[in-house]
Amino acid sequence: MSQSPPSSATGAPVIGLDLGGTKIAAALFGADGTVLARHTRPTPARDGATAVLDALATAAAEVDPARLATALGIAAAGVVDPRTGRVTSATDSLRGWAGTALGAGLADRTGLPVACDNDVRATAGPELAALVAEVSVHASLLFAAIGTGVGGAVAVDGRMLHGASGIAGHLGHLPSPEAAGLPCTCGATGHLEVIASGPGITAHYERLTGTSVDRLETVAERAGRGDADAVHAITTGAAATGRVLGGLANALGPDRVVIGGGVPRIGPLYGDALAAAFAAELMPPMRGLAPVAPLFGNDAAVLGAAALTTTLPLHHPGVLR
Amino acid sequence: MSQSPPSSATGAPVIGLDLGGTKIAAALFGADGTVLARHTRPTPARDGATAVLDALATAAAEVDPARLATALGIAAAGVVDPRTGRVTSATDSLRGWAGTALGAGLADRTGLPVACDNDVRATAGPELAALVAEVSVHASLLFAAIGTGVGGAVAVDGRMLHGASGIAGHLGHLPSPEAAGLPCTCGATGHLEVIASGPGITAHYERLTGTSVDRLETVAERAGRGDADAVHAITTGAAATGRVLGGLANALGPDRVVIGGGVPRIGPLYGDALAAAFAAELMPPMRGLAPVAPLFGNDAAVLGAAALTTTLPLHHPGVLR
Repeated sequence: MSQSPPSSATGAPVIGLDLGGTKIAAALFGADGTVLARHTRPTPARDGATAVLDALATAAAEVDPARLATALGIAAAGVVDPRTGRVTSATDSLRGWAGTALGAGLADRTGLPVACDNDVRATAGPELAALVAEVSVHASLLFAAIGTGVGGAVAVDGRMLHGASGIAGHLGHLPSPEAAGLPCTCGATGHLEVIASGPGITAHYERLTGTSVDRLETVAERAGRGDADAVHAITTGAAATGRVLGGLANALGPDRVVIGGGVPRIGPLYGDALAAAFAAELMPPMRGLAPVAPLFGNDAAVLGAAALTTTLPLHHPGVLR
Repeated sequence: MSQSPPSSATGAPVIGLDLGGTKIAAALFGADGTVLARHTRPTPARDGATAVLDALATAAAEVDPARLATALGIAAAGVVDPRTGRVTSATDSLRGWAGTALGAGLADRTGLPVACDNDVRATAGPELAALVAEVSVHASLLFAAIGTGVGGAVAVDGRMLHGASGIAGHLGHLPSPEAAGLPCTCGATGHLEVIASGPGITAHYERLTGTSVDRLETVAERAGRGDADAVHAITTGAAATGRVLGGLANALGPDRVVIGGGVPRIGPLYGDALAAAFAAELMPPMRGLAPVAPLFGNDAAVLGAAALTTTLPLHHPGVLR
C-alpha cells in the first residue's frame, strides 16, 4: 500500500530509527516516503545509555553519509515522554536506559532536530494517519501490540495520546479476569500482560501441563495437533485481550481497533478467539466494530519514527550542557 | 472555591441546562461565573422527546425572561455526540430519547446557539479546566461518576475525549474480575457497573445474604453496625472500581483521578477500599497518584453545561427543517 511521506516540511529526507532490546534499525526516507537507505546493527544493550546513544548516532550516519537529512525521528523501547525527550522508565532489557535524555543526546550526536516517542506509539502513527485520511480528522484508534509484552497506543479525536510521563497506551496493565492472582512484571497482580503476552501464554500452558516449553510457537504447533491445553492457553490469552480491548472500546470509542505484534501471527485460532471475546464486550453503539490487522508491515517502526518529526516537539542540538 | 466564568466570548450571560431522568435544572450564569437565576422542573420522562425538548426550552425561558443570554449549553443523560448534536443512544429512563436532534431542536426552540454533551462529561469540564489551570495545558484527567450506573469522562493532553458516537467515558463497561459472570445492563457479562454501581452493590449484598434491601444507604448503615456481608459488598464494589481505574491510569496517564457521584458519599469504608485497590494497580511511573473528590459541588452539571458553549461546536437555529 502507499505510504504517506514522513519527510519534514521542507521536503528534505528524514531519518527514522527504531531502537529495540536486540537491534537498531535505521532508514532514510525521501520526501515521497521512499526508503533511500537502510541499516541495522545490534543494540549494545548491556553497555549503558551512552553506548546506546552512540550506536543510534552511528546507525543514523550509516543511512545518511552525505548528511542530506534535516530531521531525525526515533522510536524507542521503554516509556518515553515526547515533550521532555526523556525515557521516563524502562525495564532491564536496556541497562541504565531509564532517565536517558534521548532527544537532546541524539540531537547533540547527529546535529539534527530529533523527535522521539516509544516504539509502539511510533508504529501506530502511520495507522492513525491512514485512518484519519479514510474516516475523519476526528477519528479514534485503539492499537494493541501483543508480543513479548502487551503494549499499545491510543488516539482519540484524531490525536495520539501521550498522557502523564508519556505512559499512555500501556494496555497490558489493566485488570484481566483471566489473570486473577497472577503476578505481573510491573509489581501488581492480575494484569492482562501476564496471561496474554507470548511468554504469558507459554507460561499458562506450562502451568496447565506441568511441562516446560521453549516458546509460543511450540504451544501453537501443539494446539494445531489438537493438544487441548495448548488450545486453552492460546484462546485464554486471546480472549483476555479481546475482553480488555472491548471494554476499552466502550470507554474510548475508537473507529478502528488494530491488533499488531508477533503473537497474532500464530494463526486463526488466536484471532478468532480474540474477535469473539471483543465482540461480546461491546455496548450497543460500538457493535459491528471488529479488530483488524495493521496496514503497515516490517517498515512500520522506522516509517513511524520518521513521521514523528512532523507531529511531535523537536529537540535541538546544544541544549544539553 | 472560585469558578471560571463559563460565559460566551462576548461576556454576555449563558444558560446551563442539566437534563436528568427525573428533573431538569437550569441556571443563568453571568460573565464572571455568578449564578443570576435558577430553576428546576420535573422531566416529562414518559412523554417522548418533543415534550422533553419543550420542557428544556421552558426551563431556559424561566431563568432568562429578559433574553439576555447569547448561548445555551446542555448536559443530558444518554450517549450524546457533541459534533452531530444528537443523542446516539439512551436507556428507557427517557422514552424515545435515542436519536433526538438535541442541539438543533433546542436551538430552534430558544433561538440560541446550543452546545450539548452528556451529563458526566459536562460535569467533568470544570474539573478539567481547574486541572489545566493548575498543572499544564497538557494535563490529563480521569473522572469517574459512581451512582445509579458507573460513568465517566476522560481528558488527555488537555482535551476532553468524545470518541466515536460520543461514547468516550463509559468506564462502567470494562471487564472487572469481581463481576465475572454477572449480566450487565448493556447485554454483556462481567462489566464493572454490575458490581460497583449503587444498585450493583445493593444486589451483591442481597446475593450474599439472601435477603432483600431497599437501597445502598441501608447496606452502608448495616456495614457501619458491623454486618460483614454489607462490608464485603461495599468494599468489593469499591475495590473493583479502584482496580479498573488504576488499570486505566496505566493505559492513559492521568495527572488527576476524580471520583464523583453519589456512591462515594456513603463514607470512608468505600473510599479507603477504592484508594487501596487503585494504588495496588499502578505501574512505577504512576505511583503516588491517588483518587480525589470533585472540586465542584451541586452546581457542577449546570456550570459545566454552560461552559460547553466555549469548548464545543455550536448548533444554530433554523438548521432542522
